[in-house]
Amino acid sequence: MIFSLYLPPAEIEDAIPLIWWLSGLTCTDDNFSQKGGFQEYAAKHKVAIAIPDTSPRGDNIPDSNDWDLGQGASFYVDATQEPWAENYHMYTYITQELTQIMHDLVPGYSGKESIIGHSMGGHGALMIGLKNSNRFSSISAFAPILNPIQVPWGIKAFNAYLGSEESTWHEWDATSLIKQMDQIPPILITQGTADTFYDVQLQEDAFMKAAQNKPVQYDKKDGYDHSYFTISTFIGQHIAFHVEQLNK
Amino acid sequence: MIFSLYLPPAEIEDAIPLIWWLSGLTCTDDNFSQKGGFQEYAAKHKVAIAIPDTSPRGDNIPDSNDWDLGQGASFYVDATQEPWAENYHMYTYITQELTQIMHDLVPGYSGKESIIGHSMGGHGALMIGLKNSNRFSSISAFAPILNPIQVPWGIKAFNAYLGSEESTWHEWDATSLIKQMDQIPPILITQGTADTFYDVQLQEDAFMKAAQNKPVQYDKKDGYDHSYFTISTFIGQHIAFHVEQLNK
Repeated sequence: MIFSLYLPPAEIEDAIPLIWWLSGLTCTDDNFSQKGGFQEYAAKHKVAIAIPDTSPRGDNIPDSNDWDLGQGASFYVDATQEPWAENYHMYTYITQELTQIMHDLVPGYSGKESIIGHSMGGHGALMIGLKNSNRFSSISAFAPILNPIQVPWGIKAFNAYLGSEESTWHEWDATSLIKQMDQIPPILITQGTADTFYDVQLQEDAFMKAAQNKPVQYDKKDGYDHSYFTISTFIGQHIAFHVEQLNK
Repeated sequence: MIFSLYLPPAEIEDAIPLIWWLSGLTCTDDNFSQKGGFQEYAAKHKVAIAIPDTSPRGDNIPDSNDWDLGQGASFYVDATQEPWAENYHMYTYITQELTQIMHDLVPGYSGKESIIGHSMGGHGALMIGLKNSNRFSSISAFAPILNPIQVPWGIKAFNAYLGSEESTWHEWDATSLIKQMDQIPPILITQGTADTFYDVQLQEDAFMKAAQNKPVQYDKKDGYDHSYFTISTFIGQHIAFHVEQLNK
C-alpha cells in the first residue's frame, strides 16, 4: 500500500495534529497532494496531512472493468463478499494499521485527529468519523456521497462488497449512522451547485433530515463543480475549521 | 491549438493586467492550471493568466520519439528546418496570434503584461520577454534553462529546429540576448538546489555574468526540486513581483 504524508515545517516543541484526507473514485494518494493546494494552510497551521490510497492495488488484487468498483473504488468499507473479502478491508486498514503507521511518522504528534474527504472519500470521512466520534475532533467533506444505500454508486458498491442483504449496509451508511447518534463531532460540508453528480449521487435531503439539531454546516457554492479546483478554492476554509477544533 | 486562460473575479471598472505562463518539456496547458496553485493570488491581485500549450499538437504534426523534441518540446522558437518549419512557429504564435486572442478575451484588459515560465518555458519567458522588452513589464522563471546553446537539451533542440549553423541560435538564447541589452525589465528567477537538472541543464554562471549590473534577482532555494510543488510554493511571490511592476 502506498500513501502520502505531509509534514509541516515545525519546531521540536510543536505539537502536531493529524488531518486525514480520503479521495474519491479513481484517485490515488497523488490527486490531493498534487492538486489540493492544502500545503500552504497545513504549513501555516502546523498540521500533518495523511493521504491514503482509495483501495488495495496490484495485478493480483481483484478488480472490475468499471471505474466505480474495485481498484480505486473501495468505498472504505470492510468487504465480506467474494472476490473482495480477502483484500478490501480499507476501513480496518485506515482506522488501525495505517493509523499506527501515521502516528509513528508524525514527529511531535499531538494525539488529535480530524478527517476530510471528497465524493466517495467524503462519505468515507463522514462514515469513519461518525463510527469513531470520540477519536475525531471534527469531520468535513467536499461533494460527499451522503446516503450511499439510496444512490446508484453506493447501491452497486455495497451489493458487491457487502452482499444483497441490505440490513448489513446501514453500519456503513453516513445517513443511517448520524440518525442514531446524539453527539457528533462538528461537520462541515461544501457542495458545488454546478457539480454534475449533485442531483443523482450526492443529494443531501435524507442526511440533513437525519442530522437535524446536530452541528452540521452544509455550504452550497454557486457555480462550483466536482473538481479539484473547487477543493483547492475552499481547502483553506476546511483546514481552518478543523484547526479550531484540534487546538481546543 | 488549445490554451487556458484564468480570469479573476472583477468589477466592470477594474483594469486587468495579463501574465503569461510558459510550461516546460512534456507539459500541456493543464499542468500549471491544475498544479500551479496560482489562482488564489491571481484572484487577490486581479490579474488574468494566459497558459499556452508547449507546442503544436496533432496526428499530422511532426513529432519525435524523444520527450525533449517535437510535440511538448517546442522551445518557443520559430523553426526553420524540416520537418518542423511548417508548424513549429511557437514564438510567432505566442507573441502575435495568441496575443491578439488573449487581449480580446480579457474583459477590462489594462494593456500591461508580464511573463513567467518553468524550465524550457522559463527560457521561453526570458527569451520572449527580452526580445520584447518594451512590451513586458517584468519577467520571471522557475528553474529555467538559461543558456540553451550550451546545454544538452538546448543543443539538441536548436540543431533540429534551427539547423547546425550556430550563428542562427543566438537570437533565441537568453544569455546571448541579455548580454547585448542595456535596459531590461526586472527579472526574478527561482532555482531549487535539489533540482536534478540543475547542474547540467540549468546552470546559471554564463547568464548571471551576462546579466551583471542588470536588475536580475536569482533566488536559490535549498531542498526544492524541479516539480510543481516548488512552483506552487513560490508562485505567490512571483505574482506579487509582477503585480508591483504591472501596477506602476
